Amino acid sequence: MTSAQTDTDPAQVNAASHVLSVDAMGGDKGPATVVAGLSKFLGKNPDAKVIVHGPEAELKPLISKHNIGDRVTIHDAADVVKMTDKPKVAFRKGATTSMWSAIEAVRSGAASVCVSCGNTGALMLMSTIRLRKTDGVNRPAIACLWPSRNPSGFNVMLDAGADISADQDDLLTYALMGASYARNGLDIDRPRVGLLNVGTEDHKGRAELKVANELIANAADSGDFDYVGFIEGGDLPSDKIDVIVTDGFTGNVALKTGEGTASLISELLRSALLRNPLSILGALLARGSLRRLRKRIDPRRVNGGVFLGLNQTVIKSHGSADATGVAAALHLAYRLGQGGFSDKLAARVASAASLAQDGPQHIETGSLSTNTDK
Amino acid sequence: MTSAQTDTDPAQVNAASHVLSVDAMGGDKGPATVVAGLSKFLGKNPDAKVIVHGPEAELKPLISKHNIGDRVTIHDAADVVKMTDKPKVAFRKGATTSMWSAIEAVRSGAASVCVSCGNTGALMLMSTIRLRKTDGVNRPAIACLWPSRNPSGFNVMLDAGADISADQDDLLTYALMGASYARNGLDIDRPRVGLLNVGTEDHKGRAELKVANELIANAADSGDFDYVGFIEGGDLPSDKIDVIVTDGFTGNVALKTGEGTASLISELLRSALLRNPLSILGALLARGSLRRLRKRIDPRRVNGGVFLGLNQTVIKSHGSADATGVAAALHLAYRLGQGGFSDKLAARVASAASLAQDGPQHIETGSLSTNTDK
Repeated sequence: MTSAQTDTDPAQVNAASHVLSVDAMGGDKGPATVVAGLSKFLGKNPDAKVIVHGPEAELKPLISKHNIGDRVTIHDAADVVKMTDKPKVAFRKGATTSMWSAIEAVRSGAASVCVSCGNTGALMLMSTIRLRKTDGVNRPAIACLWPSRNPSGFNVMLDAGADISADQDDLLTYALMGASYARNGLDIDRPRVGLLNVGTEDHKGRAELKVANELIANAADSGDFDYVGFIEGGDLPSDKIDVIVTDGFTGNVALKTGEGTASLISELLRSALLRNPLSILGALLARGSLRRLRKRIDPRRVNGGVFLGLNQTVIKSHGSADATGVAAALHLAYRLGQGGFSDKLAARVASAASLAQDGPQHIETGSLSTNTDK
Repeated sequence: MTSAQTDTDPAQVNAASHVLSVDAMGGDKGPATVVAGLSKFLGKNPDAKVIVHGPEAELKPLISKHNIGDRVTIHDAADVVKMTDKPKVAFRKGATTSMWSAIEAVRSGAASVCVSCGNTGALMLMSTIRLRKTDGVNRPAIACLWPSRNPSGFNVMLDAGADISADQDDLLTYALMGASYARNGLDIDRPRVGLLNVGTEDHKGRAELKVANELIANAADSGDFDYVGFIEGGDLPSDKIDVIVTDGFTGNVALKTGEGTASLISELLRSALLRNPLSILGALLARGSLRRLRKRIDPRRVNGGVFLGLNQTVIKSHGSADATGVAAALHLAYRLGQGGFSDKLAARVASAASLAQDGPQHIETGSLSTNTDK
């Protein structure tokens, strides 16, 4: 049973689904940026409420400046987890930090989803210990959005770096969780899942990938997704998949490689266009289109690494996110919170685990699970 | 002893350093493209000679069309390794294939470096069995060039996919081989080497990375390179390193992710600029600058994955390379062949291995090795 089920009655859960818990501290740009993002978000979502966590004396003036005091509750927390703190050091700082306080608010059922710009490792450790792993999940994962040629503009990739390794069973769990996230976060009824490898032929790759390849194929029907098999690094932005499954080491390197390549190219594009008067004029004429392109691949629009496999949902917003980026993470959080995402995901994983225990003859009739997740 | 040392006298080696061995078959665009690339290359290198391998009846007319018959020798080979052949199947086709014949010409000392556009897996298997691994190398690697902010425009990354795993000793060997390649292929006297990981702190990453981190740091002085420690995916195009060391699984995913990201962005840029008349005009005005940018990140300019750790050098040209791409791979091959690269690399690896056997007190005085490699 999830702790949401044990700790709260249905009315409370319903109420809390409109409430987000936000750690105002720990981002590179400080609490003023987080509160500005909060204000943007609240402006577009009239029913939403937020609990913010941090030093009250610092937060109060920021919040009254934006005139959002009636929809924001402050939970005073004096300490801050620093970006440079090792996860265990951060954990020992414990209950007095804004990060801990933000996690506690979803643990108690007061809010539905927790959002923080802080230290990823510390947030994952604290969340895992305080919220605990969903039954059937051995390694929680971080899911990120990857700019793609799909109509939504994005694919889901996991694990983006929660854990440095994953065995075949973890990869299967990632496929189930990633499909559930694509359904609830990107509105894709039957997501197409691919497993990242160094080639698409069945004989390619490490031993655990070959086993995972079969496990995920067998789980596709009961998990309500299509499995497209092995994919390669060049397929990450492809429109033939929606969800990319990989271990956290490979996923983290791929994510940062993609970001690094994009930033190299835009730097080179900029300096190419500034090279002579003719191309400066050209760039001026094309600036509307170039701005649209920049927006299309803007990392702020894809802000929000979602921790999957815990009893409640936690979203890591980018440390250097500005107000637009923070608002994007809050929109995602609100959407997932209102849809009851963490319970749906838990039901998906539990149903796959029970199907596996029942043996293969039950897999084909596993349509029961379709009622548990949209 | 390398087979070059056993099979040939010094006069012959000298003669062969001007000769390349080229597999004309197996590329996606056929032998006409390879011969066109050959002609480009020979036009710029008046002392170079080439042995081409493939069906004589098909190659002869192509070569006389380009009027390069006096500097090209044809080795007739009736069979072709297909892109879809599994490596073992290709190997069993054996001696009648153009790929095998191209490798034999460097094995016998008739040519200095072998170049093929064919099937990578087959080329690696055939090369490893026929040319054998350099003493002290357990896993040969493929080194590729990565567009970067460095003055040369490129960094070296290895392994780009020769092997799906690498232990700490392999990673140390990759560091030595990559540094030697950067010195000889990119003219960098004292290359800066980084080890790819999911963070830059010493406690990050898998166990073998932590051990490799120490091994490579200890080998830096005797290997004549600087070790910058762990780097992340975002650092691949960085100007703080010249050589990126990683296992072939991660390297292959990173390489293809970078290519995929670059191709998504140029696609989006193109469609953004074609969106309205104003930006079409802008793009026309800036087209000189945009063309220069395209050239800067053109994969054809970085054509040539170099197999490191065999007794002779083999270069894999991209299967879809056009004449410009083939010529780029031949230029690289010629440069490495003339510099006696494979012997220098072998001496580097052997010297590191003997230093390790002699124990740490010899590492600091290991300046002997500087005579073996430029």
